[in-house]
Amino acid sequence: MNPSRVRATNGEQTDRGVATKGIVVLGSTGSIGTQTLDVIRALPDAFRVVGLSAGNNVELLTKQVAEFRPRMVHSNGAGPEAFAAVWTDVETMVAEPDVDLVMVATTGRTGLAPTLTALRAGKAVALSNKEVIVMAGQLVRETARLGGGKVLPVDSEPSAIWQCLQGEEQPVRRLIVTASGGPFRTRPLDDLATVTPAEALAHPTWVMGRKITIDSSTLMNKGFEVIECRWLFDVAFDQIEVVVHAQSIVHSMVEFADGSVKAQMGPPDMRLPIQYALAYPERMASDAIPRYDPLRYPSLTFEELDTARYPCFAMAVEAGARGGTFPAALSAADEEAVHLFLDGHIGFVDIHPLIRDVLADHQADDVSLETVLAADEWARRRVAEVVAARR
Amino acid sequence: MNPSRVRATNGEQTDRGVATKGIVVLGSTGSIGTQTLDVIRALPDAFRVVGLSAGNNVELLTKQVAEFRPRMVHSNGAGPEAFAAVWTDVETMVAEPDVDLVMVATTGRTGLAPTLTALRAGKAVALSNKEVIVMAGQLVRETARLGGGKVLPVDSEPSAIWQCLQGEEQPVRRLIVTASGGPFRTRPLDDLATVTPAEALAHPTWVMGRKITIDSSTLMNKGFEVIECRWLFDVAFDQIEVVVHAQSIVHSMVEFADGSVKAQMGPPDMRLPIQYALAYPERMASDAIPRYDPLRYPSLTFEELDTARYPCFAMAVEAGARGGTFPAALSAADEEAVHLFLDGHIGFVDIHPLIRDVLADHQADDVSLETVLAADEWARRRVAEVVAARR
Repeated sequence: MNPSRVRATNGEQTDRGVATKGIVVLGSTGSIGTQTLDVIRALPDAFRVVGLSAGNNVELLTKQVAEFRPRMVHSNGAGPEAFAAVWTDVETMVAEPDVDLVMVATTGRTGLAPTLTALRAGKAVALSNKEVIVMAGQLVRETARLGGGKVLPVDSEPSAIWQCLQGEEQPVRRLIVTASGGPFRTRPLDDLATVTPAEALAHPTWVMGRKITIDSSTLMNKGFEVIECRWLFDVAFDQIEVVVHAQSIVHSMVEFADGSVKAQMGPPDMRLPIQYALAYPERMASDAIPRYDPLRYPSLTFEELDTARYPCFAMAVEAGARGGTFPAALSAADEEAVHLFLDGHIGFVDIHPLIRDVLADHQADDVSLETVLAADEWARRRVAEVVAARR
Repeated sequence: MNPSRVRATNGEQTDRGVATKGIVVLGSTGSIGTQTLDVIRALPDAFRVVGLSAGNNVELLTKQVAEFRPRMVHSNGAGPEAFAAVWTDVETMVAEPDVDLVMVATTGRTGLAPTLTALRAGKAVALSNKEVIVMAGQLVRETARLGGGKVLPVDSEPSAIWQCLQGEEQPVRRLIVTASGGPFRTRPLDDLATVTPAEALAHPTWVMGRKITIDSSTLMNKGFEVIECRWLFDVAFDQIEVVVHAQSIVHSMVEFADGSVKAQMGPPDMRLPIQYALAYPERMASDAIPRYDPLRYPSLTFEELDTARYPCFAMAVEAGARGGTFPAALSAADEEAVHLFLDGHIGFVDIHPLIRDVLADHQADDVSLETVLAADEWARRRVAEVVAARR
C-alpha cells in the first residue's frame, strides 16, 4: 500500500501526514467487531478507533479500550467508571464530527436506531447487522438519501456484488447470490428433526456469530441477503437468483446487460469484506487477509437451491416481496425462534412453521420507524403466544 | 439497452438521432471477422461498417459488402472491379476520419502494419490478431501513446482481465489467466507423436480459426496471451499465473492488492468479448450472445499447468521475458511450424523442438518496426533451413 494514496477524510493527521478515517465499532466484542479491530490493527496508518460499544463482554471491551484508546465508549454490561474513555450513548457517538464511518456489527434489531442516526448525520455505515436493512430497507435507503450518509455492505455476498459493480455504470440484468447450503445440505430430510444446536452451529465454511450461524443453517440468512441486495442495489426480487455453492469461494456474481458475468472470489474470511468497506474506495495490502489459490480449490460446484430443504429461504423472499412491515415481523420472529432453538425450547424443524404461523397473522402496515418497531414488538409477542399455546 | 446512452463518437447520426461508431474490419471473412459482423448486425443503431478487408474468400466478402454497404473495401483475392465499394488499401482505410474503431481480425504478422497505422492516427484498435502484440508489444504500446490511439483486447482472457479492472484504480497484485488445456490435456504423453491435424483442430471448448486452434493445442497460444497481458496491462511476467480450467467458463481473474479476486465468466463464445471491445465503455443487451447459467456447469475445475505436456508454453513465456526481437522470432517460427504441421510436413511433437532450435540461433536486437520485421523474416527462413537439413 502506498500511504500517500489514502484519501483525505475529515479525520486527523497521523505523524506520517496521512489522514486516517475515524471509526466507531458497535458490537466490538462480537465476531465481526473483533475482526474489524483485526483489520484496523493491521493498518494503523489508515484508521483510528474513535468509539467502541459492546454488550456484556466487559472484559474484552476493557482490553479493546486499552489497546485502541477510543475517545468514546459504551457498554451494556458495566457503567462509565469501568473504562478509560468518555462514556457516550450510542446515538450520540455515531454522529460525532470526528466519526467518518460506523461499523454496525450488532445483531438483530439493535442496530436499527444507530444506523438511522448515523445516516442522518451523513456518515458512512458499514452494515454487518443485516436485520436492519431487512426490517426497514426502504427507510434506511430514504434516510441515507436525505442525510447524505451511505450504506456499505459488509456481508460477503453483497460485498462481492458491490465490488463487481465498480466501474460498471449500466443497470444490471441479474445478481447471482451464492449460498454454501449450510451444515445440512446433504443430510437426509427425515433427519433434520434431530438436529441439535451444536450441529447447527458447526457451519462448514464460515466462522460467525451464533444467530447468523443458525440463520445460515436454515438459509433464512440467504433470504435476508436477497432482501438486503434488493435495497442495496435497487433491483427487483426477480432479478436476484440464489445458487448453492458449497465451497464459499465465489462470494456472488453479477450479470450485466450484455450477458457478461463478473464474480468476486476469495477464501471464506470476513476480514476482506470488512476491510473493503472500511477502506473503500481504496484497496489496501494487508497480510492479515488470506489469499485465494485456485489450485487449493480444484472444483467449484454449483447446484440448485432445494426449497423443500430450506423452507425459511422461500418464506423470507416472499416476505420481502410482500413488503411493508412483513420483513420486520419476519426478522423479529426469526430472532425469537432462533433463541428458542438455541435454548432448547423448540426443535430445528419447528423454526419454519413457528415463523410461518406468526407471519400468517401479521397485519402489515406501511414502513416507518414506528410501524417497523411495532411490527417487531408484535411478532416477538406473537411468537411467545404461539409457543405457549402449543405447550 | 437504452440507445440514448450510446456515447457520442465522431460518427454519423442515425435516423434515431444516436451517434454510431464507424468500424473497419480487417480479416472480415475469418472466424473473428464474421463474428464481429454478427455483433454489428445485432446492434445496427450502435455501429456502422465503414470498411472491410479480407484475403482470398472473395465470395463471402462480396456478400458482406452487399449486406453492410461499407464505403471502402480491400481484398487480396480480387481486384477493385469485383466490389460495390471504393477500393482502398488497408493502410489508408484504417486512418480515414470516419473510422472510430479498427477490428484487426487477421492472423500472424499481417496485422502489424495496419495496427500501427491506426494507432498513429489515434484510432481505437480492437486487437484479435494477438501475434501483433506478441511480436512488437513495446512498439505497439509506444505507438498508441504517441498517436493517441488505444489497444482494446478481443481475446477472451485479456478481455476478462480488462473487464475485471474496470473501476479499480490501484495496481494489481496478480493476473490469473485460465487455459482450457486444449484437446490433449489428458492424452498420454507417449501418444502425442501420433496427433493428426484433424485431432489438433478439434478444440474441446472454443471454435476458432485454424492457426489459433493449433496454437491452443500446444498452449503456445497461452504463452502468447501471457506476453499480450504483460503489455496490455503493464505487469511483470512474474505477476501472471496460468491455471488449467477445462470448462472455459472463467475467462480469467485479477487479484487486487487486498487479496480480493475478480473473475469474468460466460459460456465460451467470442461474440461477448468482441461486442465489449466494440461497445466499450458501454454494455449493450444483445440476444446474439449466449447467457451463463451456473447450473449448466455444475463443476468448474482448476488444475496446475503441466509444462512437460506443453513445452511451447514455457518457451513462449521465456521468449517474452528475454524480450527484444525474441518474441517476433518466436511468433514467426511458430506460424511457419504450424503451417508445416497442418500441411503434413512435420509431426505434432516436432513443433516445439523446431521453434526451440530456431530461437537458440536467434541474435536478438532492440525492438523497432525494422528489427521486428527482420527477425520475422529471419525466423521464417531459419525454419525452412532447419527442416530442409533434417530431411
